[in-house]
Amino acid sequence: MILTVTLNTALDITYRVRSLRPHATHRVTDVTERPGGKGVNVARVLAALGHEVTVTGFVGGGTGHGVRDGLSAAPGVRDALVPVGGATRRTIAVVDERTGDTTQLNEPGPLITPAEWSAFQEVYGDLLAAADAVALCGSLPPGVPVGAYAGLVRTARAAGVPVLLDTSGEPLRRAVAARPDIIKPNADELAELTGAHEPLRATQDARRRGARAVVASLGRDGLLAVTAEGRWRAAPPARLHGNPTGAGDSAVAGLLSGLVEHLPWPDRLARATALSAATVLTPVAGEFDRRTYEELLAGVAVTSEAAAA
Amino acid sequence: MILTVTLNTALDITYRVRSLRPHATHRVTDVTERPGGKGVNVARVLAALGHEVTVTGFVGGGTGHGVRDGLSAAPGVRDALVPVGGATRRTIAVVDERTGDTTQLNEPGPLITPAEWSAFQEVYGDLLAAADAVALCGSLPPGVPVGAYAGLVRTARAAGVPVLLDTSGEPLRRAVAARPDIIKPNADELAELTGAHEPLRATQDARRRGARAVVASLGRDGLLAVTAEGRWRAAPPARLHGNPTGAGDSAVAGLLSGLVEHLPWPDRLARATALSAATVLTPVAGEFDRRTYEELLAGVAVTSEAAAA
Repeated sequence: MILTVTLNTALDITYRVRSLRPHATHRVTDVTERPGGKGVNVARVLAALGHEVTVTGFVGGGTGHGVRDGLSAAPGVRDALVPVGGATRRTIAVVDERTGDTTQLNEPGPLITPAEWSAFQEVYGDLLAAADAVALCGSLPPGVPVGAYAGLVRTARAAGVPVLLDTSGEPLRRAVAARPDIIKPNADELAELTGAHEPLRATQDARRRGARAVVASLGRDGLLAVTAEGRWRAAPPARLHGNPTGAGDSAVAGLLSGLVEHLPWPDRLARATALSAATVLTPVAGEFDRRTYEELLAGVAVTSEAAAA
Repeated sequence: MILTVTLNTALDITYRVRSLRPHATHRVTDVTERPGGKGVNVARVLAALGHEVTVTGFVGGGTGHGVRDGLSAAPGVRDALVPVGGATRRTIAVVDERTGDTTQLNEPGPLITPAEWSAFQEVYGDLLAAADAVALCGSLPPGVPVGAYAGLVRTARAAGVPVLLDTSGEPLRRAVAARPDIIKPNADELAELTGAHEPLRATQDARRRGARAVVASLGRDGLLAVTAEGRWRAAPPARLHGNPTGAGDSAVAGLLSGLVEHLPWPDRLARATALSAATVLTPVAGEFDRRTYEELLAGVAVTSEAAAA
């Protein structure tokens, strides 16, 4: 089983409007809702790839009911979320039908009490016993200590479970020092962590800070991986236009599934790149176009980089 | 007891953001939720004025739980909402902290089944037995027949309960023919109903179509009332700047409370005008600044208009 952790789960709501204009009143023409948060998206992609997945994190309130209802309808995803007194946050994506642009409004999330944080850590420890790998994903809700991911990385490593971390800012900085197996920052997150803006240099620096492997997602330029086994760049055969939301989560699912299947790094990177590109063609995170994925998989160019000068 | 009907209740959500920019991602800094829909706002103002109020209409889903929880915390408002299978709509008001502007996103509402519409009509009939007056407020959710308000007006009149109608478009046009005691259109709604853009002429025309009294809310120009007892204009002593959301609902509460207290029309109009103006000073609909209300009440100018030429 693969475990994904989403401490700040979300009810992802998408609105379609004729045209979004600040200071105006808009009639929403279409409303869709689905469970969200990075780890939830990762889980849905893993399940679609045929893996057994369990999601954990916090859930609460009426919005939390919406998240759980949506998960119970997602085949292959087991719900091990921990109930809290606060309400799961909403994210609202407002799609402008005229331009196709999306405007995003993200609530901060519920305030987690110390007792709820303790309850989660206990559940997490129990779930690790049956996990082949774990992904720690996304932002921390209010109340969760900034060193939370560092602790969760240590617990996973002590249990012998490989751990992938996908977060940003201070929680990332602290958790990197706890030596996660893989981190997957994007260019901005990497620059914030290391202070370096040149991707290869920043990626190497992130490894020196503690991450055993760093896979940087560089948008259109694909992935750059620096690992103990070597370093590679992976790029899709063509640039696809669409909605980049969820592309990073699909890359995480590709890396994790490749890890538990013991694939060599170049194959993991090809899978992550193809999944990521196939996600850009779908309107929502956590889904990918399977046919595009299979077509792209053979066409991804993975090139080995020379060792550091 | 005063009964207010809100067929399309809402969970009114207010977001504060630093600055709203289309196509950007925004961190919401503050989230507030309260029960909404015009009749719910009217009920809260009536309760604050010391009246016994019952709210009915439809409620459902997780958002419906939010509405009911909010109502149970509102002193003096009895919840007689009818549960439905669909989810109560959300409305999102996005307040830009930089400019103070509000951008509004309104969901359409749940699809009401014929069985749910029948169940409502039965509850409505029962509630009328104990009602001194009834207000029919706002838009119709999908599935409710366009002639709904016409039927509800007839039922109220058959039960001898005075009925105030505050809606727009085709539902207003049809219901006016059923001879409601009072309608309270704004200038746009009145023009759409009658085709006339000159307020006095349009107001007179609306009476000819069936409304026994027409109170037009003309924004900064106050109220224009054409009734069987006479015609009046009522205007606040000063123009107040603030948030006009809910000003119309407070005017309805002023008119209804004056009706059940058997006040003469000029006093009803003074109250409606002062309440409406005192609502502009509060950030949310369904609330008013009591001190401003009391100060304004004495200063509202109600002038009698000469009969039609």
